[in-house]
Amino acid sequence: QIDSARLWGTIHETAKFGATPKGGVRRLTLGPEDKQVRDWFRNACEAAGLEVHVDALGSMFGLRKGRDMSKLPVGLGSHLDTQPTGGKYDGVLGTLAALEVVRTLNDAGIETETPICICNWTNEEGSRFAPAMMASAAYVGDFTTDDILSRKDAEGITVAQALDSIGYRGQTAVGTQKFSGFVELHIEQGPILEAENKTIGVVDSGQGVLWYDGKITGFESHAGSTPMPLRRDALATLSEIVLAMEAIAKKHGPKAVGTIGEAVIANPSRNVIPGEIAFTVDCRSADAAIMDALDKDLRAAIAEIAARRKVKVQFDLIWRKPPTHFDPKLVDAVENAANMLGYSHRRITSGAGHDACNLNTVMPAAMVFVPCKDGISHNELEDATQADCAAGANVLMHTVLALAGV
Amino acid sequence: QIDSARLWGTIHETAKFGATPKGGVRRLTLGPEDKQVRDWFRNACEAAGLEVHVDALGSMFGLRKGRDMSKLPVGLGSHLDTQPTGGKYDGVLGTLAALEVVRTLNDAGIETETPICICNWTNEEGSRFAPAMMASAAYVGDFTTDDILSRKDAEGITVAQALDSIGYRGQTAVGTQKFSGFVELHIEQGPILEAENKTIGVVDSGQGVLWYDGKITGFESHAGSTPMPLRRDALATLSEIVLAMEAIAKKHGPKAVGTIGEAVIANPSRNVIPGEIAFTVDCRSADAAIMDALDKDLRAAIAEIAARRKVKVQFDLIWRKPPTHFDPKLVDAVENAANMLGYSHRRITSGAGHDACNLNTVMPAAMVFVPCKDGISHNELEDATQADCAAGANVLMHTVLALAGV
Ligand SMILES: NC(=O)NCCC(=O)O
Ligand SMILES: NC(=O)NCCC(=O)O
Repeated sequence: QIDSARLWGTIHETAKFGATPKGGVRRLTLGPEDKQVRDWFRNACEAAGLEVHVDALGSMFGLRKGRDMSKLPVGLGSHLDTQPTGGKYDGVLGTLAALEVVRTLNDAGIETETPICICNWTNEEGSRFAPAMMASAAYVGDFTTDDILSRKDAEGITVAQALDSIGYRGQTAVGTQKFSGFVELHIEQGPILEAENKTIGVVDSGQGVLWYDGKITGFESHAGSTPMPLRRDALATLSEIVLAMEAIAKKHGPKAVGTIGEAVIANPSRNVIPGEIAFTVDCRSADAAIMDALDKDLRAAIAEIAARRKVKVQFDLIWRKPPTHFDPKLVDAVENAANMLGYSHRRITSGAGHDACNLNTVMPAAMVFVPCKDGISHNELEDATQADCAAGANVLMHTVLALAGV
Repeated sequence: QIDSARLWGTIHETAKFGATPKGGVRRLTLGPEDKQVRDWFRNACEAAGLEVHVDALGSMFGLRKGRDMSKLPVGLGSHLDTQPTGGKYDGVLGTLAALEVVRTLNDAGIETETPICICNWTNEEGSRFAPAMMASAAYVGDFTTDDILSRKDAEGITVAQALDSIGYRGQTAVGTQKFSGFVELHIEQGPILEAENKTIGVVDSGQGVLWYDGKITGFESHAGSTPMPLRRDALATLSEIVLAMEAIAKKHGPKAVGTIGEAVIANPSRNVIPGEIAFTVDCRSADAAIMDALDKDLRAAIAEIAARRKVKVQFDLIWRKPPTHFDPKLVDAVENAANMLGYSHRRITSGAGHDACNLNTVMPAAMVFVPCKDGISHNELEDATQADCAAGANVLMHTVLALAGV
């Protein structure tokens, strides 16, 4: 059993890096608060006897030796970056639980057959730089390191510049650190476990993701003197697109979601009809055929709206992550650990994306979920109980022990 | 006849203060570019022999003596501030044509019976500080000077601070400079004169204006893991409000317009459902009963949308300017001048608000319109011909001469 109080302590200790007045965390990837938590994590890893290295995209790896160093380590961990108004658990729980597993094994003097390696992946959130799960995507070869290094945030700062500014452009090439498999603990970020009163979610699948960048070009004109029929209003156009996205997602029942999270009017003024708007779209399904239908329906809706309103809509798919089907053997290993520890559990699909979803494309991977209050995440009010966090960490530890061998 | 080339020259000379790459002007009220054009205007007024004074809200007055200094001057002029992406003519034409009238009278050695006074009113556009036509509204007593001085821009800078920062908080109390009447030349900012091939619009009325500040409070949550039916999406709510505003304005046929020009998502992120949005509404009609109907319909629509979507919408009327009916005698004077000069003309309603609309509530006022290309205004592409600008300035001069007496 891991040390529940110690795990809870580290979660609340690191939550001070980027703490917000409403009790959440604002720790955008590769910003100054991210540097603070990274420095803390590196020190904690070294204090636990781990050999730490950082790759060219800033992902951090802490290696614990095994009896047979010719064997690949089992990977475990998550991420320490947050949303602009994020919570204390998303990513943090999985990373600090991995550290807690190491500390527990150290305290108990347990040596594993294979090494184990705890990870903090760079930019899982995708909020400052697109796509989400950026570093693990590069790790599995979905993008080249150079491509990712050149991605820019809203201020035009590249990933390379941001890494250098906090001193976390590491020495090892992306993909150097190999694993025999990967296990990630995370809060569910949805309402199911809580509603069904289950402690553990055995994650067997994950939704696919489509991310788009859009730009509407209408025509700026005077709010008072431009007759309604002559307008080419970029905001009215966006409004129709938002409601079309919502209707399309609803049409696919519980099997799809669609969101417009960002929309910026160029040179806004109270008495000017908006002429240009940049926006982003996020839509998801666990079913690849539904993802294709979402894409098709959305493009058709946008084309119709743009033609009718006589505006130009540029609409580019910038990221497509297919649905995830986690490795059946590792999923069973998670379920066995939950059974062995006597926690109530159920199989579950992840609504969110996770680094484990990327890693699963090149190695066996699986995930452990624990409930979060009211299913709320990506919100400063995100909450989880100490008991559930500890239960998740115990399932994580026993899954890793089963894979690494004692 | 005024000097058409000289007028055209001053329009293009001053357009360099805040010139944009697309050929427009960005000269927000009381900013550094506004200081540049004000300094230019003050020098030009003094060079033309005018006695310049500035009031406590920065409005500039240049007085040309008349034979009978016991009589009130005739006022003429407009404004020199622009929209964030504004044109070269909106406001500028009326202010520089007033200067051109003085220069022409000087050159011809014409003395008028009453004095005349040319004006540059502060913050006509209402883009940086609300409301529009701010200084003339204070002049007529719609707001106190102190109230206006405390208004803030988006960065939290007050009117008082902005005035001090460019050295244009003047000595004279607002309202000190009295007029016997006021005449303003302006581009139409709408499509009617051009479509009907008329040179002069004899403005007999103006639309009333309703300005609102709105704030939607939904709930931020994860774009991937929050089921569609559980969402309280602030952007989807705004989208319905935008389309409701559009439908309500269209319902009142050509007699109303409604626009949402500003909308800002708090802490936006691609994979976060928007939780909070601030927005503004501008709606207008020349008919007071329709203005009331717009207000009622819009509030009802917002209440219904908010209740259905379980979000909070705060919606405050921050400015109500009733429709304007210009002084019939001054309107006739404008028409007589157009007739006398042989220009084609028609009576017209102003879609935009103007300082003359405010001034008309305490003195006889009227306006002269000239066509602008495709009716486009509040856009960098705003355009007008030299001949039309000169025609408008001639009508302005002869209207003023008729009122001031030769
Ligand atoms: N777990 C999580 O919130 N990841 C962020 C990427 C996503 O939007 O799914
Ligand atoms: N003339 C003009 O564009 N005024 C700005 C105020 C308004 O929105 O009507």
